[in-house]
Amino acid sequence: MTVRALAILDAFSADQPVLTLTDVSRRSGLPLSTVHRLTAELLRWGALDRGADGGYRIGLRLWQVAVLAPRATGLRDAALPFLEDLSQVTRENAQLGVREGTELLFVERIAGRCAVPVLTRTGARFPLHASGLGLALLAHAPADEQEAVLARPLAGYTPWTLTRPDAVRAALADVRRLGHAVSDRQVTTDALSVAAPVRDARGEVRAAVSVVVRARGARVESLAALVTSAARGIGRALPVPPAQPPRSATGRAHGRPRPPRADEV
Amino acid sequence: MTVRALAILDAFSADQPVLTLTDVSRRSGLPLSTVHRLTAELLRWGALDRGADGGYRIGLRLWQVAVLAPRATGLRDAALPFLEDLSQVTRENAQLGVREGTELLFVERIAGRCAVPVLTRTGARFPLHASGLGLALLAHAPADEQEAVLARPLAGYTPWTLTRPDAVRAALADVRRLGHAVSDRQVTTDALSVAAPVRDARGEVRAAVSVVVRARGARVESLAALVTSAARGIGRALPVPPAQPPRSATGRAHGRPRPPRADEV
Repeated sequence: MTVRALAILDAFSADQPVLTLTDVSRRSGLPLSTVHRLTAELLRWGALDRGADGGYRIGLRLWQVAVLAPRATGLRDAALPFLEDLSQVTRENAQLGVREGTELLFVERIAGRCAVPVLTRTGARFPLHASGLGLALLAHAPADEQEAVLARPLAGYTPWTLTRPDAVRAALADVRRLGHAVSDRQVTTDALSVAAPVRDARGEVRAAVSVVVRARGARVESLAALVTSAARGIGRALPVPPAQPPRSATGRAHGRPRPPRADEV
Repeated sequence: MTVRALAILDAFSADQPVLTLTDVSRRSGLPLSTVHRLTAELLRWGALDRGADGGYRIGLRLWQVAVLAPRATGLRDAALPFLEDLSQVTRENAQLGVREGTELLFVERIAGRCAVPVLTRTGARFPLHASGLGLALLAHAPADEQEAVLARPLAGYTPWTLTRPDAVRAALADVRRLGHAVSDRQVTTDALSVAAPVRDARGEVRAAVSVVVRARGARVESLAALVTSAARGIGRALPVPPAQPPRSATGRAHGRPRPPRADEV
């Protein structure tokens, strides 16, 4: 039952954020009658919203719960000021990502208003081997997870994409040696990204931060210094994960949030 | 069944983002055996994550799905450059919110790195009558929804909080007349916020944007001009909601996202 409700949520995508019940049925593989019943439950709770057009979409209440995810919002809140600085100083796009299994997950992106329109988005996935963020993360992944990535076909986007396992291994060794990753024209022929891993207080790599620039004339050394500095700042700002099991919550701390501070409302 | 799985997600809060199974059982009111079984399903799908400490938290996959919510991420993506400009120009906090029933929901906040530490967060709720964002939204809500808010007790935080329905009604009339809302020392005795409604291409109020400053010496007129201008910019950047029911999705557009543009990876 739960699995089917989750399959309904999974039917929504960035390409198709608004669906009819027929769409949901087709994309989830569930019978229309099941979709009808479960959708009504999800709508009642707020996991789905229904627009004036009659279409269904992911609901605001699911978003409210989901932004509690420490690996997304906790990280993003710590990183945002540093991403803004990076984007201001370089006038380029600054990005934040985490490794989710064998893929890169984009958590945040700061782009100037006048920047070239961008297609990636918060929540999108991308192969680890073909980006600065991905290489910075993969270089510090456990060996078996590195091998799992390298054992699969490595998608190529340009003649410069690293599609041979030994080329990716060499790039990962460079990341560990230099402390930052360079992804040179791997996705398109005119862009280059420089990324650095973000370590928490225990030294564990929790995320990566990058800046993306035109490949022609890119000053990799100074970008590497900026990105590494931002990564260290983000690492210090990260909440330290508890080493002990969380203490049992006493009482229901559920209700209304405390009033925001003066400078917030 | 679906309802119970959603009750488990609801057990998590900003105050308690990491829970044991016993916590989840207590906070959801569900028997431990049910929690055990449903949690395993949610964990398998990725709606929950489990940390090295053994604690459960909202999972990264739920976040990935939830950021598809048009009323949150779609709005936020359109607004972010304008919020950044507002925050840069004023050196103050810029905020974005929507009305969710009888409450204000914070969707985004941009604060400088050196700003006073803040307690509100993305995803938090707050009463509509006691903030600039809330007044800007409530002023343009349907009359019956305004009355639903005014019929409830109006929480007071300072001697300046509008806790009488007629005082709130007068403030709402001012918002409609002036085009912006001013919330003067309503939450704490030293802060003031100026907010403006964000209208989409059809003229419907979809959100509000605000800037928060020290009450003493606040230059309301110039802040109102800035915030109103930002609200207009955000309104133009909003995706126009479809007037027609969405066309049925043909084929499964599910898989891997397109590769990001050059300036993104």
